[in-house]
Amino acid sequence: MAATAAQVKELREKTGAGMMDCKAALDETNGDIEKAIEVLRKKGLAQAAKRAGRVAKDGMIGHYIHMGGKVGVLVEVNCETDFVARTPEFQTLAKEIAMHVAAASPTYVKREDIPAEVLDKEREIYAAQFAGSGKPANVIAKIVDGKLESYYAQVCLLDQPSVRDPNVTIKQMVTAATAKTGENVTITRFVRFKLGETAE
Amino acid sequence: MAATAAQVKELREKTGAGMMDCKAALDETNGDIEKAIEVLRKKGLAQAAKRAGRVAKDGMIGHYIHMGGKVGVLVEVNCETDFVARTPEFQTLAKEIAMHVAAASPTYVKREDIPAEVLDKEREIYAAQFAGSGKPANVIAKIVDGKLESYYAQVCLLDQPSVRDPNVTIKQMVTAATAKTGENVTITRFVRFKLGETAE
Repeated sequence: MAATAAQVKELREKTGAGMMDCKAALDETNGDIEKAIEVLRKKGLAQAAKRAGRVAKDGMIGHYIHMGGKVGVLVEVNCETDFVARTPEFQTLAKEIAMHVAAASPTYVKREDIPAEVLDKEREIYAAQFAGSGKPANVIAKIVDGKLESYYAQVCLLDQPSVRDPNVTIKQMVTAATAKTGENVTITRFVRFKLGETAE
Repeated sequence: MAATAAQVKELREKTGAGMMDCKAALDETNGDIEKAIEVLRKKGLAQAAKRAGRVAKDGMIGHYIHMGGKVGVLVEVNCETDFVARTPEFQTLAKEIAMHVAAASPTYVKREDIPAEVLDKEREIYAAQFAGSGKPANVIAKIVDGKLESYYAQVCLLDQPSVRDPNVTIKQMVTAATAKTGENVTITRFVRFKLGETAE
């Protein structure tokens, strides 16, 4: 199977190797980019591949530093154009979400990010709390669902009530920004460093 | 086996439950803190445990934001006392390391953080480059070692030459700070967010 032009282009971008070398490497590996990188590197034709992520979205990395550096937060808030990313409204949103993360310390961005085994364990614990209550199973199931909602609001950034205005969740803030800018606004990821928390 | 006072204290701090409840839970689980937390939670006596890291070290979270938010970096630089953490010299060091990470984009803090399989793959690739060279095996081994040193200088923060002054590695900067402050200065972790790099 001959290498496509798109594959050759991608391999060139990832390795900096010449076009014919890239084509030959792709032919040799049946179009497997990762293996082709290895082939080129063994021939000394490519640099150690940097993990280069393609920039598919615009937006900004919001940040917040608390207490002179005892807590630090980064959050990636995305929109569709640099034009919107540069507006004061968008920049304020990114800063406010970063401040929220510093204060509320979520674990995940959204519900879908919670590992299944963590969720199962939560369910098990909630169910055990009502095991001897004599309530019917369907009632307990509803109570467990309700408790899971509270759990989401504790650990998921999007489900958390804003620290500044507890009547609004972060998700509602993002939805409002989407409506206002006319662009799809999303939170991709965040990180929160607290001084000393990794020390044993 | 009776629970020790230290175990009861730790469990209380982690759950907010009462002392006698904590003692009973620990007795039930033979002193296993994690299981005791589960026991307390099943009884409805404990909140969902927050991942609380103990603050064993001082220092600061250095940060740097590049190009109005297209790249963001956090770095945890540790020392032993808040007194040193507050000095302008230490704060400058933390900022400079964060700026360096933004520019040089290391993958690991130190050599020991590189996974064994990654290192093996690098060795294999370097060796393959000289497989047909006719050089004796011990010479090739030395060349491979030399190439590994260059690899460390590419991917490990501590081995990287400073972007501002390429004659000095980050490790040397840290060592100089240790000498100057009289405290053990270390870099624990860093994170670098580049806008859009996680998008597919």
